Amino acid sequence: MKKVERLNRKLAYRGAVIDVYQDTVRVPNGNIAQWDFIGHLGAAAVVPVLEDGRILMVRQYRNALDRFTLELPAGKLDAAGEPMEVCAARELEEETGYRSENLELLITVNTTVAFCNEKIGIYVAKNLIPSHQHLDEEEEIEVEAFTIDELTDMIWEQKMTDAKTVAGLLAYRQKYCR
Amino acid sequence: MKKVERLNRKLAYRGAVIDVYQDTVRVPNGNIAQWDFIGHLGAAAVVPVLEDGRILMVRQYRNALDRFTLELPAGKLDAAGEPMEVCAARELEEETGYRSENLELLITVNTTVAFCNEKIGIYVAKNLIPSHQHLDEEEEIEVEAFTIDELTDMIWEQKMTDAKTVAGLLAYRQKYCR
Repeated sequence: MKKVERLNRKLAYRGAVIDVYQDTVRVPNGNIAQWDFIGHLGAAAVVPVLEDGRILMVRQYRNALDRFTLELPAGKLDAAGEPMEVCAARELEEETGYRSENLELLITVNTTVAFCNEKIGIYVAKNLIPSHQHLDEEEEIEVEAFTIDELTDMIWEQKMTDAKTVAGLLAYRQKYCR
Repeated sequence: MKKVERLNRKLAYRGAVIDVYQDTVRVPNGNIAQWDFIGHLGAAAVVPVLEDGRILMVRQYRNALDRFTLELPAGKLDAAGEPMEVCAARELEEETGYRSENLELLITVNTTVAFCNEKIGIYVAKNLIPSHQHLDEEEEIEVEAFTIDELTDMIWEQKMTDAKTVAGLLAYRQKYCR
């Protein structure tokens, strides 16, 4: 089976958190095409589980969707090469005000493989230890706790749609809640 | 809880399948910031289930990841406003060579909510009817059938990472395979 052969990658636009490239590729039938590529550092997300089994979720306004979302706590790597688990631990504490010394890798997802290399490691955090929330200057986030049944219902009702959150919660339910 | 207020949206780069915008926003603390926004038409994906319960998957080379992936059959809307279900039916037939008159909405995901409005409707297709694969000129795709257990194992082993695929398969397993 043939690969797509990349002949050139040209920076077309430098954004705030993404770099946009124009790739020149030779597709399997031999034709030359221009494809989009978005370079992203990667990110980590966490399923933070309280003693009573409820899960801490973050609510925030998402400019790209023009609405509030309910998501797993998550954030970008600070720099290329930052270990995913370090990023996960930091984002958990910054966004929820809890920390954990017990992060377990659950799944890895690539968010949108047709044009972007963004990769998110999703961790389960138990034995949460109260600490302090410290949000980025631009963030306003509310933290709320839900049972896994409440969250799964929101997925079936198409009310919670963030892909990392849907994948992470369904994976958590399948692996930890039998 | 405060929204992010968008003051301006300016087209910064027109790609092959995405449009990249520079948004000027007022964040909740009152500061003005420049954020990235990527406009995407949206897409549909399908969990195609054979009579014996195996699921049809597509293998293809992904330039953005520099590797082959195993994914649910999927594709972009043809135009803004195309019904998701019409797109799902078309992509199922084009990529796998099977069609179905029985598409059921499973979940909806937004792939990467921090900067992109891409939304994917994921459908379950049963009662598959043999038809003809007809790929886009640029596509080379192999179709393979797997059991849900084989696919779930690939998720746990971090071998299958496409977010729509992970979310769709775990949702299918949870809803249809008890």
